Amino acid sequence: MKKILVVGLGLIGGSLAMALRGFEDFEVVGAVRSQSTYSKAAERHAADRLTFDPAGELPGADVVVLCQDPAGIIGFLREHRDRFKPGCLIWDVCGVKTAVMEAAQCLPSGVNFIGCHPMAGKEVSGIDNAEGTLFRNTHFIVTPGPAATAEHLELLRRMADHCRFGDVIITTPERHDEMIAYTSQLMHVIAVSVCADEGLFSCKGFEGGSFRDCTRVAALDPAMWTQLFTLNAPALCQVVGALEERLRQYRQAIETGDREALSAMLACASGRKKQIDLERARGDDVRPAF
Amino acid sequence: MKKILVVGLGLIGGSLAMALRGFEDFEVVGAVRSQSTYSKAAERHAADRLTFDPAGELPGADVVVLCQDPAGIIGFLREHRDRFKPGCLIWDVCGVKTAVMEAAQCLPSGVNFIGCHPMAGKEVSGIDNAEGTLFRNTHFIVTPGPAATAEHLELLRRMADHCRFGDVIITTPERHDEMIAYTSQLMHVIAVSVCADEGLFSCKGFEGGSFRDCTRVAALDPAMWTQLFTLNAPALCQVVGALEERLRQYRQAIETGDREALSAMLACASGRKKQIDLERARGDDVRPAF
Repeated sequence: MKKILVVGLGLIGGSLAMALRGFEDFEVVGAVRSQSTYSKAAERHAADRLTFDPAGELPGADVVVLCQDPAGIIGFLREHRDRFKPGCLIWDVCGVKTAVMEAAQCLPSGVNFIGCHPMAGKEVSGIDNAEGTLFRNTHFIVTPGPAATAEHLELLRRMADHCRFGDVIITTPERHDEMIAYTSQLMHVIAVSVCADEGLFSCKGFEGGSFRDCTRVAALDPAMWTQLFTLNAPALCQVVGALEERLRQYRQAIETGDREALSAMLACASGRKKQIDLERARGDDVRPAF
Repeated sequence: MKKILVVGLGLIGGSLAMALRGFEDFEVVGAVRSQSTYSKAAERHAADRLTFDPAGELPGADVVVLCQDPAGIIGFLREHRDRFKPGCLIWDVCGVKTAVMEAAQCLPSGVNFIGCHPMAGKEVSGIDNAEGTLFRNTHFIVTPGPAATAEHLELLRRMADHCRFGDVIITTPERHDEMIAYTSQLMHVIAVSVCADEGLFSCKGFEGGSFRDCTRVAALDPAMWTQLFTLNAPALCQVVGALEERLRQYRQAIETGDREALSAMLACASGRKKQIDLERARGDDVRPAF
């Protein structure tokens, strides 16, 4: 029997271990650090087997999935670089890819690292909130390095299928980080910025769906998002700055009562959004899997 | 039999007419302008009866619900001020209240206008998208003028119950407009600002739930939101400016790599959001109905 070692059973790692159970002829082993996570993972049958000793499992692991926070992933690669099984596939789930791909350059040849980012999550964390169905119909983004083999990419695709991801998107780490700054990190900066407003506690009774939706992700893990934001600083600062400028333009049109300009700006943005929704409904955005 | 006249069967008016059908001993009459809306409303049994002539119905209407766009509501009050039945109750659904309450001052005494704002909606408009269940568990905000009678407030409360609103919030027009600038209008300004980004069409495959949630309301009706934004310009510009400033602070902390400051800001906002969610889960935000 082959072995998949999932390191870190938080929300994403726990969900991946659950989703990967039963994959072909692989045993899924979950590596945890705390007794509390061990107990919860055991109770929920999150993996076929649990361990406190990931290092001890590495020589026999055909696939290693790194699900710690960004610093944890980078540190693990560096610390255990010589323990991985020759020919094994390592992939990770970090929300920024350039920094992780760079760290993976420390690995010996023959050990293949492929950067991955499951575009799934919740505003809550930990094994308590893990679910094997978390990845259904979400994007699985893959940033293979130059040394990625066709066999490993094919194996990864089969794992993605088993987890029921909606599609697999292959791109470069740089493009991933640029896109994710806009589609994900900016949404989190917006949510925390809105929740920092003095009005938050006095507005109860006045929220509609748009407020709940926009602020949902503000209940984030500060330590992890501090890492994610600073690891992608240039791309993120660019999109935050661009948003500030567009907000300023709206404010100016509203302040000066320039209804014509305001109406034109709203029509343009609303038209773009409607077109994107239409394309999505038609399924134009489904990319071919590799 | 008494009569409720719902003027304007768009998304909100159509949904209200449907939700109000069967209310006590009232006939629900829907006033439309276009043949197309008439046909669709008839097909969907949106009201007990339909008419192209709201003015002709006014002398016999015990309750009039104004569901046009803001300019339409204000114009209707002015044009028909002398046609309303003495002792009748008029309420509206406009998303800004100060401007509408001011316009209602043209009404003769004995005709009672109560400003209302059902905090429900969709990112699509028109009778096609109307549903009688739209208001379930949403906030019904009420801004009574000084002349509002206890009987009319009680009648309004029974209508809100019949429509299955989650709660009824009574406040002043000024406070409503200040709160709504933050909880609703700002969310719409954010959504259109995000969708104005050049990255919108190239980011397909990289969106997660946060992006879909935050941009959902960008597919708005430009003409109506131009009115809503400009009618509430001072309060809205204040919150947009405050958001620009907080985004700038985040950008600065990320740009300079000040992890300590960034982490503290994230912890603060995330803590506030978690506390609000907790209070909401405990039901602390349910205000007593009047």
